[in-house]
Amino acid sequence: VSVPGDAALGPGREFDLIRSLIQRWGAAAVGIGDDAALLRVPRGETLLASVDANVEGIHFQRDWFAPDEIGYRAVTAALSDLAAMAARPLGMLISLTVPESWMHELGRVADGIGEAATRFQSPILGGNMAAAVELSITTTVLGAAFAPLMRGGARDGDAVYVTGLLGGPGAALAHLQRGEEAGDGRPRLAKPVARLSEARWLADAGAMCAIDISDGLVADLGHVAAASNVHVEVEASAIPVFPSASLADALQGGDEYELVVTSPAALDTEAFARRFGVPLTKIGRVVGGPPTVDVRGARVADAKGYDHFSR
Amino acid sequence: VSVPGDAALGPGREFDLIRSLIQRWGAAAVGIGDDAALLRVPRGETLLASVDANVEGIHFQRDWFAPDEIGYRAVTAALSDLAAMAARPLGMLISLTVPESWMHELGRVADGIGEAATRFQSPILGGNMAAAVELSITTTVLGAAFAPLMRGGARDGDAVYVTGLLGGPGAALAHLQRGEEAGDGRPRLAKPVARLSEARWLADAGAMCAIDISDGLVADLGHVAAASNVHVEVEASAIPVFPSASLADALQGGDEYELVVTSPAALDTEAFARRFGVPLTKIGRVVGGPPTVDVRGARVADAKGYDHFSR
Repeated sequence: VSVPGDAALGPGREFDLIRSLIQRWGAAAVGIGDDAALLRVPRGETLLASVDANVEGIHFQRDWFAPDEIGYRAVTAALSDLAAMAARPLGMLISLTVPESWMHELGRVADGIGEAATRFQSPILGGNMAAAVELSITTTVLGAAFAPLMRGGARDGDAVYVTGLLGGPGAALAHLQRGEEAGDGRPRLAKPVARLSEARWLADAGAMCAIDISDGLVADLGHVAAASNVHVEVEASAIPVFPSASLADALQGGDEYELVVTSPAALDTEAFARRFGVPLTKIGRVVGGPPTVDVRGARVADAKGYDHFSR
Repeated sequence: VSVPGDAALGPGREFDLIRSLIQRWGAAAVGIGDDAALLRVPRGETLLASVDANVEGIHFQRDWFAPDEIGYRAVTAALSDLAAMAARPLGMLISLTVPESWMHELGRVADGIGEAATRFQSPILGGNMAAAVELSITTTVLGAAFAPLMRGGARDGDAVYVTGLLGGPGAALAHLQRGEEAGDGRPRLAKPVARLSEARWLADAGAMCAIDISDGLVADLGHVAAASNVHVEVEASAIPVFPSASLADALQGGDEYELVVTSPAALDTEAFARRFGVPLTKIGRVVGGPPTVDVRGARVADAKGYDHFSR
């Protein structure tokens, strides 16, 4: 069952709800209304597709965020996977499971989804809605690129760069998990940025490999190391740490949605900063050796990212 | 976070689980391993995308089905949305939320997903996995078609046809909901068929409008009536009813995944039956009038399909 649009609405509360969401989304929702959404992929480009789930109680607690922030960050996390491949968004499908206790807030959750759709120019093409015990937002993103950046594109001799300042979301999350105020890192956690324009700039400038930081810098560089079969050396002193965050937050905190890229050519970090208003920082290099990550100048107690099923 | 393949695996139980699923899927899983899956859409064709969620406790009860049936039917329901548009599957993304109590059965759920992927030639291109309170399987299907069939394609004078025999899943579901054995309709409920090949045959033969029966024949014809702005008349005596099911099951039961099409040209029902081994039956016609559905020769107490949020 796909989301039917106005033209295909039957009776019943489910369709009333969907109709109200489509109305709230306005121009951010495009062409919804059949069994499947229709898209045109530009000739010669590759289609990219990714899905990401955001589940209450697992990825967030209800009282940590405003409803619109919950919608916004779920969608942005999914769009970040397109940024990691330097793709342009074509649009997305939103699958919601909604408990009765969330019904009154659903419009505000949808507002956040629509805000992200507008900001990152990724129209809502369709979706699905079902009752459930937990609120969940599962976002499928569709994008296109001539030459997607891959995790396996890093080579011996490449320099490693990262966008933004790291550790803000990790620090904020740690505060929330201890029942404290989130602190200065809160906006980075509640309203992250999918670095879509930045990724295309970096690919045009010569980056050959990219990943977005969702599990944590070291964990995600580990994915690059494994996929590219290279060793990655990071200089702890070079990491751009968010004010009020620790180096450990910056190395291991997830939910950043900043990009790490590797490039055989030197990248113009000043031009990047002028263009986007966020720093681009060289933090290390790709060298021969085992497909692992080494952080020089820091003790990393546990280099793993967040693992949903670890005990 | 997309599902990383073998090449991009880090440590941790989440990746171990994903690795084990990919191994079970074998040739049914293709190219998993980066932030997004890469696909080529045939030149000149339209891309179709749809998402469908199957949630424990809402769409099924755990004790109704074997684990592989739960995986199989979730994926098949999603693929049916591509059949409804006469599209060929390009592949799909599988987003799973998995409670601890399901961990030991997860492999068998995955087996059912893989079985459907193989049967309907729709490779698993990527996905997502997260812990949760309920098992849920959210399937994004991607397909391609030169000329997708739309809900809005019905015109005054068209004949209305349906594939298969109706009411089996509805009858089985009613038994299960009363705590009884599912009966003869069980295979139709537990292992439905996505009528993908049948849909392309029907489109080639002249059908101009299609929908798959997920909410129930009358409810889904209502979507066609609304989207096409036509009135649909169905003859109760013409409905092909599944043995042991009632006419009410056939008119209102959901989860059929049979197709209803409308066609200005007469369709060769015998050729269809010979080709696919299931009947194609003319059940009514499209006429001028209000955009509603009329069932002649039967009293339909409640023409609504299943509505997740009705009380």
